[in-house]
Parts: sequence; C-alpha cells; structure tokens
Amino acid sequence: MAKKDKKQPRPKAETPKGFRDYFGAEVTERKAMLDRIAEVYHLYGFDALESAAVETVEALGKFLPDVDRPNEGVFAWQEEDSDWLALRYDLTAPLARVYAQFRNDLPTPYRRYAMGPVWRNEKPGPGRFRQFYQCDADTVGAPTVAADAEILSMLSDALEAVGIDRGDYVVKVNNRKVLNGVMEAAGVLNPDDPAALAAERGIVLRAIDKLDRLGRDGVRALLGAGREDASGDFTKGAGLSDDQAAIVLGFLDARGSDGAATVANLQALIGASKTGAQGVDELQQIADLMAAGGYGADRVEIDPAVVRGLGYYTGPVFEAELTFEITDDKGRPRQFGSVAGGGRYDDLVKRFTGQAVPATGVSIGVDRLLAALSAKGRAAAQSHGPVVVTVMDRDRMADYQSMVADLRAAGIRAEVYLGNPKNFGNQMKYADRRDAPLAVIQGGDEAARNMVQIKDLKLGAEIAAQASLEEWKSHAAQREVPRADLVAEVRKMLDRGQ
Amino acid sequence: MAKKDKKQPRPKAETPKGFRDYFGAEVTERKAMLDRIAEVYHLYGFDALESAAVETVEALGKFLPDVDRPNEGVFAWQEEDSDWLALRYDLTAPLARVYAQFRNDLPTPYRRYAMGPVWRNEKPGPGRFRQFYQCDADTVGAPTVAADAEILSMLSDALEAVGIDRGDYVVKVNNRKVLNGVMEAAGVLNPDDPAALAAERGIVLRAIDKLDRLGRDGVRALLGAGREDASGDFTKGAGLSDDQAAIVLGFLDARGSDGAATVANLQALIGASKTGAQGVDELQQIADLMAAGGYGADRVEIDPAVVRGLGYYTGPVFEAELTFEITDDKGRPRQFGSVAGGGRYDDLVKRFTGQAVPATGVSIGVDRLLAALSAKGRAAAQSHGPVVVTVMDRDRMADYQSMVADLRAAGIRAEVYLGNPKNFGNQMKYADRRDAPLAVIQGGDEAARNMVQIKDLKLGAEIAAQASLEEWKSHAAQREVPRADLVAEVRKMLDRGQ
Repeated sequence: MAKKDKKQPRPKAETPKGFRDYFGAEVTERKAMLDRIAEVYHLYGFDALESAAVETVEALGKFLPDVDRPNEGVFAWQEEDSDWLALRYDLTAPLARVYAQFRNDLPTPYRRYAMGPVWRNEKPGPGRFRQFYQCDADTVGAPTVAADAEILSMLSDALEAVGIDRGDYVVKVNNRKVLNGVMEAAGVLNPDDPAALAAERGIVLRAIDKLDRLGRDGVRALLGAGREDASGDFTKGAGLSDDQAAIVLGFLDARGSDGAATVANLQALIGASKTGAQGVDELQQIADLMAAGGYGADRVEIDPAVVRGLGYYTGPVFEAELTFEITDDKGRPRQFGSVAGGGRYDDLVKRFTGQAVPATGVSIGVDRLLAALSAKGRAAAQSHGPVVVTVMDRDRMADYQSMVADLRAAGIRAEVYLGNPKNFGNQMKYADRRDAPLAVIQGGDEAARNMVQIKDLKLGAEIAAQASLEEWKSHAAQREVPRADLVAEVRKMLDRGQ
Repeated sequence: MAKKDKKQPRPKAETPKGFRDYFGAEVTERKAMLDRIAEVYHLYGFDALESAAVETVEALGKFLPDVDRPNEGVFAWQEEDSDWLALRYDLTAPLARVYAQFRNDLPTPYRRYAMGPVWRNEKPGPGRFRQFYQCDADTVGAPTVAADAEILSMLSDALEAVGIDRGDYVVKVNNRKVLNGVMEAAGVLNPDDPAALAAERGIVLRAIDKLDRLGRDGVRALLGAGREDASGDFTKGAGLSDDQAAIVLGFLDARGSDGAATVANLQALIGASKTGAQGVDELQQIADLMAAGGYGADRVEIDPAVVRGLGYYTGPVFEAELTFEITDDKGRPRQFGSVAGGGRYDDLVKRFTGQAVPATGVSIGVDRLLAALSAKGRAAAQSHGPVVVTVMDRDRMADYQSMVADLRAAGIRAEVYLGNPKNFGNQMKYADRRDAPLAVIQGGDEAARNMVQIKDLKLGAEIAAQASLEEWKSHAAQREVPRADLVAEVRKMLDRGQ
C-alpha cells in the first residue's frame, strides 16, 4: 500500500468548484443569526425539523420547481440496488415528503421550521455557490389566511430580532389569485379550461417578477413578442396584444397611496373574475389581521408588483425587502433588496397522497441577510481572538497551561502557544495572526519573582503606528503584575479595550 | 405537464433507507449539547470551521480510513466534466484538505473545531444510520504532547459542560508508540524495515481494539491462528506464536494500580525498543501535564488497552468512557462505554503537500453522548409545547392573534389554533398532541365580559386520571380571569407547573 501510494501523484488540495469553506466568525455570526431567528420561530409555536440531506429522487422530484432556471438540476447518484438518491435542493420538498409520510403522527396544522444547507447542481459564478443555507418556516394543513398573516408577523419579528430596524425593511404581500383574476380579465386564463395558455401565463409571471431588473419596457416586451438582451440572446414573449398587455401592466401600477386604495384599484382590474375577487378578499383579510396585530404599513404593505417566480404558489405571496441603500461593486448606491420570500402552495403534498394539503411558508435568504447585517454594522459584536500565553521556557509548559486554565475558569478565551517556542518573534506573529488582544509572557526572571508580563497587542500596534519613538519606548502597552493577579489584570485590560 | 403527471404513479413518501428525520426536541436537544461543547472549544482558543458537505473524491481519498470495515464506502457521483465528487465521511479528511489548501493564511498551530453531519455509504442497521453528526476539535501543526494534553483537558471539560458529572466518565489515554515497542519486543515490527509485517500488525491492532467485545480468549485467538464467530464466519489471525502472543497480551494487562505503576509495567514490556521508550516518555509527560492542570486520575488515566482501531494514529490515542451502568435492550446492566475518541495522526496532510504535518484531535460521538445524557436524565430541561389559544368564533381571529402576540411579547411560546375551529374537541386533541401546558378559551360570552378561560391541561389530565368524579367536577384545572390579566396568569400557571 505504502509503496503503491508513492507512485501516485499527490491529490490537489482544492475545494470543489462552486463550494467554499467558512472560517471562524463566518461560521459563528451565521449561527448567531440563525439562533435568533429560531428563537422567534419557536416563540410562535413552530417546531424544529431536521431531515437528512439525502432524499430519493422519486420523493424529491428530479428538478427544481423554478422551470425558468437555465441549468436546473440536483446532485444525484444511483444506489447499488438501483434506487436514485439526491441531495435536497430546498427545504420545502423534504417537508412535503415528511408531512405525507408522518401525517398521522403530526399535529394538524403542523408548524415547522428548518435550517440547513441545500445543494444545487448549477454552474457556479461569483458569489453563487452550489451549497448554501436556507432558513424556512411553514404551516401545513391550515387553509385560513390567518396562517399567512402569522407568517408575515413572524417574518417581521425575525428581521427585527436579528438587528434590522423597523423602517429599514418592508414585507410586501400580494395574492396569486388576484393575478389570476387579472389574467382572466386580460384573456390569458379561462376559468373553464385552466390548463390552456399555461405556458403564456408562465412567461407573464416571470416577466413581472423581473420588473426590478428589466424595468417596465423590458416587461412590456416580454408580455408581447419577446425581448433581446444586451448579449443578443432572445427571450420569447407571451404574445399578448397591446390591450392585453395594458391590463397586466395596469396590475403593476395598482399600488395606491395606502392599502385601501390598492385594494380598490385591484377590485377594478379583476373585472368579474371570481378567483380575482377571492384574492382581493384574502388580501383585505390579511391587511385587517396585520393592522389588528399592530403590524402597520411601516412593516407590511400590499404591493401588486410582488408575484414570486415559482409556479407552485396558489394564494398569498410575499417578499421582505430591505429599504436602506448600500453601495454596489461599482460604488453606486442601490437598494439592498429582497432577503426573504414565500407564499401559499396548496399542491406539494398532493404529489404523494393525492389529497390537496394547504400550506404556507417563508424562506429567509441567509447569506443575503448576513450581508445586510454586515453592511449595517449589525453583525455579532466583533469577536477578537484568544489571549495568547507565550512559551519562554519549554520545561515550564505546566506553568503556562495553569495560566490558561485560570483564565478559562474565569470565562476568558485563552491558549498556550503550541508551535516551536525557540523564536519569540514567531510567537508574536502568531498572536497577531490569531487577532489576540493580549499576550502573556513569563521568562525565568519573572518566574523567579512570581510575576507575569501582560502585553496589550492592540494598544501596542496603535502606539507603534502613531506615536513618537519616545512614547513607544515608555512601553505603555506592557505591564508587569504578580502571577496571582493575572486573571484580574487581564480582565481589566480586556474591558478597557472594548 | 399536468396531464402527463396524472398518468405517473404517485411517488412514495419515504426517507431513503438508512436515513432518518429528527423532530422537535430531538433537534433542539442535540443543538443545545453542541452549543455547550462549542463554548468549551471556543474558550480553549479553537476556531470554527465549516467546510462543504461535498469534496472531490481525489481530495477525500475514496475510502474510509478504517480498512476493517466490511462495506467501506462513500456516496460519490461523477460531474459532467468528469470530476468525481463525494459526500465527506468524516470531518478529519476535509480538515487535512483545508489545512493543505490554506496553510499560508492559517495560524500555525491551527486549532479548529467542526460540527456537522457526515455520510457513510454502508448497509444501514438498527440504530445505524448513513448520515450522522460528528463534533471534532483538532490542532494541526503542533508536534508537542502539550497539544495532546490540551485536547484531553478540553474533552474532560466538554463532558462536564454538557452534564456528565465528574466520576461518571474517565478519559483513557495510551500511546501507539508504546504498542509499536511491544510489537518490536514480540517480533512483529522490525524498526529497520517498518513496512514488513504491516498486515499482521493491523490484525493485532484490531484484535486489541475488540477486547471489550470478544474478551481475552477471542483476542488471543485472533493473535494466533484466527477465530470463528458464532455465525460460523472465520476471521484470519495474525499468526503469532504463543510466546509472541503472551507479550502482546501482557501489554493489555500492563495497567497498574496508578499511573506510575502502569508506566513502570510498560517500560518493562517494551524491552530495548527506542520507539517504545519514546512512547512511554510521552505518556509520562502527558500524565505530568494533566496532574499539574488539576486533571487527576478521576478524570484522565493511562490505560494500555486503549488502542483505537484506525490505522492512521501515530502517537497518543485516547477514549472517553462513561462509567455508569445503564440497562441494555434485554434488561441487563452494562457500562455505557465510549462516547469520544481521538489521537495523534501526523501524516494526513502529507498526502497533499509531501510534508508531514503533526496533528492531534478528538471526535465526540454526538448520538451516543445524547443517549447518555438522556439515560442520566440530563438532557435539556424538558421543553413543553406552546400555550394554545383556541378559536371559539372565527370572526374574532384578530382578538385571538392579539392574545398570542401579548404572550409572545412576554417571552411565552404561544399559538392560535389554525385548523378548522368548528369542533372544539378537535382543538383540545390538537393541544394535547402539541404537548401544550395551557389552553386559552374565549367564547362570545367571555368576550362580552372581557374575560378569558385558562385551562391547565397537565393538571386536567392528572385530575381526570386520578381524582374522583367530585373533584373532577370542581374544575380546579380551569380558571377565568380578566383579559388584561392573561399574560400574568399564564406565567403564574406555567411557573407552578414546572
């Protein structure tokens, strides 16, 4: 074995394409954010669910629900006994499987939250990874819009819990039934033959969803003959006449000065459509529940431009947008945009059981929300590295270990330098790389007098960078204290450095 | 599309074989345990690392390190561009890849912890799953046994942090170099030709590792000609003579009344082996460091019977065992056994870089430790379900929502019943299934008087089960309070129920 190995070339130490590693604060800040969201979900009575990363392709459905995705796909492989398995591409498909499998043991309605990685077998791009986190909460088995309203309040609470101030976000809500009513009015949906013109409606849906990116003219082109993008690629349009397109575009303009005005505008647009009327009524009910719960228009508002791209939504749909400006890669100010979305989907469980099961839920874009918190300086308090106890005499390792043990017993993060202690400069470089606030030093001389040196590395760096040679020489950043005072002095210096 | 779907049979709603779902407290109790362990790791200066679930097969190595496993394997698939990818089978192989890839940016030594699922493509069995959690801490780049000693203290602290009392566990430590010295003395290792007889040494190693399961006679058989198990399967032995086997078995008996006696016994066993002498010296150093740090023999002890099955260990090896008895499936008392293990492995990074990098680490068996906590009644405080606010009048949903909002604002987990409210009995059944401690009821009558009913479901169940009809009729478990007192009264009733 050993000999054979030597002949083989060395493996490359590389993360696979489209995957990445997360280090230190990248891990703990995300975890802190997810913990706060989980607390809110839990307070609302949602229960944790952790399904496996692996599902049968049969249960998962082989493809992503978003048929507009150019490179749709999952990571899948065949078992020896010929079953196909795959990595989950979201947390909703496993929920549908779990609910269908355990529905007799689960409470109805079943409120659950789930957090964890999902995998997409797509072409990776800048900032676009093939493994990423999702953070979902869904209520299965509740047909009432009170379930949707609850999700909206909970989303609002969750955003505030992680540090997005009120006024810095808005949850926009719409209803697919209203859109279907508008489609009826525009003649692209016949309630007596709902399957007809489905492809055209898909194009309309995705066109509206791209309003932010393409602007009004782009959407108009997609509603009509189609659109050529900057690269020359042509996207086929829905083929609507100008009159038909005008009705759909009117829908995008239906937002009024307040919720009541928006509802009135929508009522006018949907004409005689029963589905549309039902959708408007549901929007009104949600607005009433939100208002009664104290969730005013500063937090939740009706916005007809929100449609969500996925085909499976059947009722209320919503998106949480952050309203503050950030600076983009090119230095231009822009709105931060969407960090969460969801809606009602009543047919996912039906795949398994044949019975429609009403469901509604939200998914928070974990990475985008983290980026937003970071942009607002609201990420978990800047954590520094551990206190580093240096090794001046390797025979006295037990003494150094007892120092870190004392510090840890007082709740202070601390470590002994475990590299080769011969070169003290290397120990200081290590402490710097560890982002250590303090270094503790005890040579034979100090040990004989039972003293320790404590060096303030942050202050030392500032002095070295800014102060005159005289000041630097005064060694203000280093002090000698009795060994017995180590913990108290370290705590004092750490508190001052905050 | 819709028409085509109808012709296909419905997918089965099943977790894939060997995988499972975790619900509610199963998720949150594990999380609470991992959080406490992470706190200890962090306090010791270890940094979080989260690598992707997916690695290239090239980086991972295609097979598990334990060659004794009958059905070794990973979940792997081929990319379109012909790269093979696989799910990680442990957290150590990804660490080796990460360290090799980022070694110029990481501090040396690099202390990291990692927690998350790993996947094994093995035959599932009872209690044996193909996805499970690992929880590791490793120090890469530190050759000193002080690094091993630090891991041992940290493991001891972590076990106590999650609720294993001192005296209920012991961390047993040994050293592979001592075993190699014994192998030299027994004539199965020639220091001038270390590759010779590697297969025989592998058999010896695995035989010793099975002492608990096979007993002394079973190990003796495997050291000699081999062993037939109860099923008639024959395992080939190492082919040692009786004299050779006696030396190895002497090693298993080398444990003395205290650490010093054990060290003296080992020194006698290794004869003139230099490697053996180095191993004994390292054990002595570790024992000294542990004693100096206050980690006495009640927490960490030298035990020559601990060898760890994996081939890649090169120095200190250790295992944490829980010493209390539990009752097994057949009602017999038995020791709980091992919940963590690890050791020094100096060659994992070498695969990538050609340079040996010293490393040492520990892996905690998450599921076993959780089972132990549960057996000791030390799992996270029994969490009950939410307070359930029932719906007596569906037109007053906003009123019920305001009740749960008030409860949540006071930090009390609460939810409105969102199923069909027509049948009140169903609402009570739901509350029962949710493990709700209290139900809140407000019909039109109470609403008119601005009162609410609060029903203590736990007390109600007790009264119904135990008390006479007279007592039951007195409705001690239900009280009416003004709506304004809802939160205060609920809190009082919850506190009393604890």
